Amino acid sequence: MFSINTYTKRRHRLKSKLNTGIALFMGNVDASMNYTNNTYHFRQDSTFLYFFGLDYPGLAGLIDFESGEEILFGDDFTIDDIIWMGPQPTLKQNAAKAGISQTHPFAKLKDIIGKALLQGRKIHFTPPYRGKNIIVLSELLNILPAQVKNQASLPLINACIALRSIKEPCEIEEMERHMQTAYRMHTTAMKMAQPGITEQEITGIVEGISMSGGGMVSFPVICSVRGETLHNHYHGNTLKLGDLLLLDAGSESPLHYATDHTRTSPVGGMFTQKQKEIYQIVFDANNKALAASRPGITYKEVHLLAARTIASGLKDLGLMRGDVDEAVAAGAHALFMPHGLGHMIGLDVHDMEDYGDTLVGYDEETPRSTQFGLAALRLGRRLEPNFVVTNEPGIYFIPALIDQWKAKGKHTAYINYDKLESYKTFGGIRLEDDILITETGNRILGERIPINPEDVEHMVKSGA
Amino acid sequence: MFSINTYTKRRHRLKSKLNTGIALFMGNVDASMNYTNNTYHFRQDSTFLYFFGLDYPGLAGLIDFESGEEILFGDDFTIDDIIWMGPQPTLKQNAAKAGISQTHPFAKLKDIIGKALLQGRKIHFTPPYRGKNIIVLSELLNILPAQVKNQASLPLINACIALRSIKEPCEIEEMERHMQTAYRMHTTAMKMAQPGITEQEITGIVEGISMSGGGMVSFPVICSVRGETLHNHYHGNTLKLGDLLLLDAGSESPLHYATDHTRTSPVGGMFTQKQKEIYQIVFDANNKALAASRPGITYKEVHLLAARTIASGLKDLGLMRGDVDEAVAAGAHALFMPHGLGHMIGLDVHDMEDYGDTLVGYDEETPRSTQFGLAALRLGRRLEPNFVVTNEPGIYFIPALIDQWKAKGKHTAYINYDKLESYKTFGGIRLEDDILITETGNRILGERIPINPEDVEHMVKSGA
Repeated sequence: MFSINTYTKRRHRLKSKLNTGIALFMGNVDASMNYTNNTYHFRQDSTFLYFFGLDYPGLAGLIDFESGEEILFGDDFTIDDIIWMGPQPTLKQNAAKAGISQTHPFAKLKDIIGKALLQGRKIHFTPPYRGKNIIVLSELLNILPAQVKNQASLPLINACIALRSIKEPCEIEEMERHMQTAYRMHTTAMKMAQPGITEQEITGIVEGISMSGGGMVSFPVICSVRGETLHNHYHGNTLKLGDLLLLDAGSESPLHYATDHTRTSPVGGMFTQKQKEIYQIVFDANNKALAASRPGITYKEVHLLAARTIASGLKDLGLMRGDVDEAVAAGAHALFMPHGLGHMIGLDVHDMEDYGDTLVGYDEETPRSTQFGLAALRLGRRLEPNFVVTNEPGIYFIPALIDQWKAKGKHTAYINYDKLESYKTFGGIRLEDDILITETGNRILGERIPINPEDVEHMVKSGA
Repeated sequence: MFSINTYTKRRHRLKSKLNTGIALFMGNVDASMNYTNNTYHFRQDSTFLYFFGLDYPGLAGLIDFESGEEILFGDDFTIDDIIWMGPQPTLKQNAAKAGISQTHPFAKLKDIIGKALLQGRKIHFTPPYRGKNIIVLSELLNILPAQVKNQASLPLINACIALRSIKEPCEIEEMERHMQTAYRMHTTAMKMAQPGITEQEITGIVEGISMSGGGMVSFPVICSVRGETLHNHYHGNTLKLGDLLLLDAGSESPLHYATDHTRTSPVGGMFTQKQKEIYQIVFDANNKALAASRPGITYKEVHLLAARTIASGLKDLGLMRGDVDEAVAAGAHALFMPHGLGHMIGLDVHDMEDYGDTLVGYDEETPRSTQFGLAALRLGRRLEPNFVVTNEPGIYFIPALIDQWKAKGKHTAYINYDKLESYKTFGGIRLEDDILITETGNRILGERIPINPEDVEHMVKSGA
């Protein structure tokens, strides 16, 4: 945990933003895998972690914005628990670590919420995403499970976004310290990118390094020689010469801050000429976006800068044509990069996505686009100091999407579908770093994982 | 998946056991980690896997015991899904792999169950353990979430237990093939058992090997120098000379059959004299239980044989005293081995535990004991050919339990509490194999992971 002060200050700031009602913060319980007692690695709720820091199941926190009261609900371990689990601190002792003095058994939550409801008080909570918490909230609030999510509190969500968007020094330190695990995951995978190895073997080792470094992977690993398949969790392929291995993988730090990086490596250690050309465009887009990211610019502008870099590079190769600015304004480049440039990252890899990604990434000044591609951008609003964001441009040749657009005659002014035919087995390339917005610009968190094409080739060869 | 025949035969056998009503098999959906779309590794429901084999989220299966109909519910992937996920088979194509010809969109389930309820028909289902499936069942059956589990069908549960207890040749083959991953996990951990390494580093590598071998760990890894803490998922200790490292870890095969082994290794490669003595007793108990396991004997008898071996060994060391048979009958040995000798293993590591472990492990002939220790035995009933069970005796010195029993004056006729004081920092030793009951006896599945104390020492030293 961070210091007691960290948590008391955060709750204090939250109280300064809301004046009425009660906020209820449901901690997570263990998630069952294939039967009740066989559980996945415990993952505490991020909002609960942010305000209360305690990283074990069966807790709830409450803040009364009128009385100022702060209460932690949970149950003490019994002597039988201690026999099986070893000595454990009491609830009171744990609460003290978060600066909370008032504690109650978990069952008391029902009485307190019930009483507040009778008094007509507003119960603020963030949108639940776990079935078991939806059921608990449904019982506490006396509404159907299907109604729970709709009753989440927009004022609480907005207050949480305002606080969590700006990373504190202790958070940045924790994130930066854990970058060495991310570095190890990606350089190990590069060294393993040899013909005959399976995607599954690499995925396993990458996940193992994450766990060895202190926490589980921060999202399901994408490790694929079919990098054009953006949500590819199939790991059944065997690597062969000529393949590109795309690894998009991150790790949770001991305090559950995420890393998120993508690298694309040539299996065996040598890019083909065709691969080198596309790689260089993505690398340029990444570097230009990096150079442009600073307080005051919207991330939508940075996204569009990366998009223009990609369109311009593809035009040089004869895959796109016409005016680059017009092509990007029309969204033609999205055939090649149908996703956004990046997102906030923190306690969640898509930080605060449970609150709703449009609320997190957009505001009145910068509303979300509905254009294919740009609509997928998770972060569009103006950057501020101490935002941590990902920078992840990519170029993909997605046969199903190419065929669909070609059949519809989409953007024929900007896309050379004839030439594109010979790229339909190319795959995809993405290059992603995690960057901290500073007062004057930004910096990459941690040592930059090898990204220069020569460095990547060298790293792969060193593992042969 | 196994062959089509495997699944059609299983459903056929199930139909021969139930004559009325409809069985509803809810597949699992993705389990959210910290927000809706950030999910744990998908784990299909074991009952669904057993009868339908399809290993992806969003499905339900239905068997009408009166009409004989078999239906698979699910949704086809859209063109947008395919752009992100790559080409996907249709629901019809997937259903055919399980021998099912009738398919419907998932939403149709509500109509069909609703109609059946109006006709007063019984809906059989096994007890749900995931929040999201509890919510779906609550909506389908029009009852509160808290009522769902109580309405699970005992006839369906009993029929499933009868089928799944007897492993088919294809299941045994799958389990045996995956034992090489278990072997790699444990021997790698032995080699890593050196001073200065942390439990967390070993845990990570062990989980990584499991994933590399095709599947996630089959239960949360226990990797601890405090082996006496039976449910120890804390991995913060650094290994030092003189420690015993207890690793209880298993892996899921590609088709989700579990392995489950425990080994206890001397950090640095040399057991102390005291450790060697206790190790030898546990090893003897394991070997005697192995030699005794065969069709016709109850596993309760085998458990008690292991218990007597332990009590006898501890008597030789002066830690227990009096008549061994009487001590075990009284439950005095349970101070040292408070858990059971083993459990069934298959699609779940505690096989079918979602059905209720007393239903799985006991019957009218062999009811479950309530005595401390023996009550924890998950499998008590008579062994049959093609059961797969774990054999996992252990000896632990649990300070909190010793203090509790001593204060209560429990079993002073059999326990030498004075001598025990010098063992309170000893820790614990467990040795566990997975064994197949054959027609005439049993055999260990896969190559036996080094267990002889000299072999274990040698393996640890080889990693130094």
